[in-house]
Amino acid sequence: MTFAAPMSSKEARQMIRNNEWVKPTAGVANGYTQANLVVLPKELAFEFLLFCQRNPKPCPVLDVTEPGSWEPSMVAPGADLRVDLPKYRVYRNGELTEERTDIIDLWDKDMVGFLLGCSFTFEHALVNNGIPVRHIQENCNVPMYKTNIPCVKAGRFEGPMVVSMRPIPHKDVVRAVQVTSRFPSVHGAPIHIGDPKLIGIHDIYKPDFGDPVTIREGETPVFWACGVTPQAVAMEVKPDIMITHAPGHMFITDLRDEQLGVL
Amino acid sequence: MTFAAPMSSKEARQMIRNNEWVKPTAGVANGYTQANLVVLPKELAFEFLLFCQRNPKPCPVLDVTEPGSWEPSMVAPGADLRVDLPKYRVYRNGELTEERTDIIDLWDKDMVGFLLGCSFTFEHALVNNGIPVRHIQENCNVPMYKTNIPCVKAGRFEGPMVVSMRPIPHKDVVRAVQVTSRFPSVHGAPIHIGDPKLIGIHDIYKPDFGDPVTIREGETPVFWACGVTPQAVAMEVKPDIMITHAPGHMFITDLRDEQLGVL
Repeated sequence: MTFAAPMSSKEARQMIRNNEWVKPTAGVANGYTQANLVVLPKELAFEFLLFCQRNPKPCPVLDVTEPGSWEPSMVAPGADLRVDLPKYRVYRNGELTEERTDIIDLWDKDMVGFLLGCSFTFEHALVNNGIPVRHIQENCNVPMYKTNIPCVKAGRFEGPMVVSMRPIPHKDVVRAVQVTSRFPSVHGAPIHIGDPKLIGIHDIYKPDFGDPVTIREGETPVFWACGVTPQAVAMEVKPDIMITHAPGHMFITDLRDEQLGVL
Repeated sequence: MTFAAPMSSKEARQMIRNNEWVKPTAGVANGYTQANLVVLPKELAFEFLLFCQRNPKPCPVLDVTEPGSWEPSMVAPGADLRVDLPKYRVYRNGELTEERTDIIDLWDKDMVGFLLGCSFTFEHALVNNGIPVRHIQENCNVPMYKTNIPCVKAGRFEGPMVVSMRPIPHKDVVRAVQVTSRFPSVHGAPIHIGDPKLIGIHDIYKPDFGDPVTIREGETPVFWACGVTPQAVAMEVKPDIMITHAPGHMFITDLRDEQLGVL
């Protein structure tokens, strides 16, 4: 019996760059931190960065490129954000207009790329602590909901926080808070535990994004701030152009998940 | 024997606004978080925020105003950054040109105010954990040094990290790391423990800023990233105008120090 050596982040990006992997990235280059991508024109960059700064739980910034540069020099020196994600979505005036596997011709000298932490990192930490993650068990997307919690406004950017939900066995709720608190740069601690109505969610089985999951007897719904928030908010601003990763098709950084732990 | 009720942050700011307190703020409104101020024209704001984002240990952002607004709405709603600090320094083209007690006439529609965490918060945490802080004992300023550690560049902003040093008894060094790690938004964990030469400091008794302090037998010098870093770096950019707090004359926020603890 032989074991394949685990893939490095660089190998994974090369494979993606060559269009040899045009699929979701969950489980690829395990242990390396994956990130959400938002690309906006420079004219909106300060306001968007300020929005992230003011709303660090839904918008945990891992890296920001210099205007015009496609290299995320902090988290993946040498990488190219125009080709190193398996699939992109292009929005014009707030409407999804196309999906594509590279954005070389769209990245002009005014574009700024933002990489934001994603929930994969803290989900690994939950699993490594023996806490089940339902949507992984049920092999579907995490359920996400618009809440009645307003984000803090910054310039033109404003809107409600979007959260993801994971049902957690009562006995594991405290540990789930502890484990995810270690990772503030990937959403961190939950924002709510228990009754969904208290944060404006009226039917837990009808998520606004993603798929519903089973909540079993003896489990509490636990809610984390979600990286869909900044995309939803940016879309409302209707920028001439905005580019994001396609859902699940993330950017793979050179950071290891454990490096993001504050203690 | 009677005890005076401790002063609130709002009472302290009102006193300062009325020019009834034109002195350093250490110990004023104890328990409330104090902050460094940097005011820059909007044209430099994105690059400076990016610099802070990339160098969170020396530049921990607590709040940023909307361009033209003087209200730090996250950390002190209703406050006025033009009058609520006891003393300001005005730099033109990188040179200190004046000190004053308000900056009302300088705050035009392009000004952006940045509030950055300061070391007072983690020093309180050290003292509350029974760890001595030498410059407080010796009633002088903390010693600060330019290091050979480069900050991560952002646009025009670049330069070496400035650190502050506190001699810590060997037996308390681990606890000092733990205690300050709880507070990443006010410089957080040390950046170096021990031999000053390893970070480019050649004479520990000749700090570049502040005052030298005694290092006793059985103590290790421990170095933290310092809020003087962004000021030193911004000065090199020689902006037409930059305004900061005068050393020790900080802004008092409505945050309580303990609220900044990540766990």
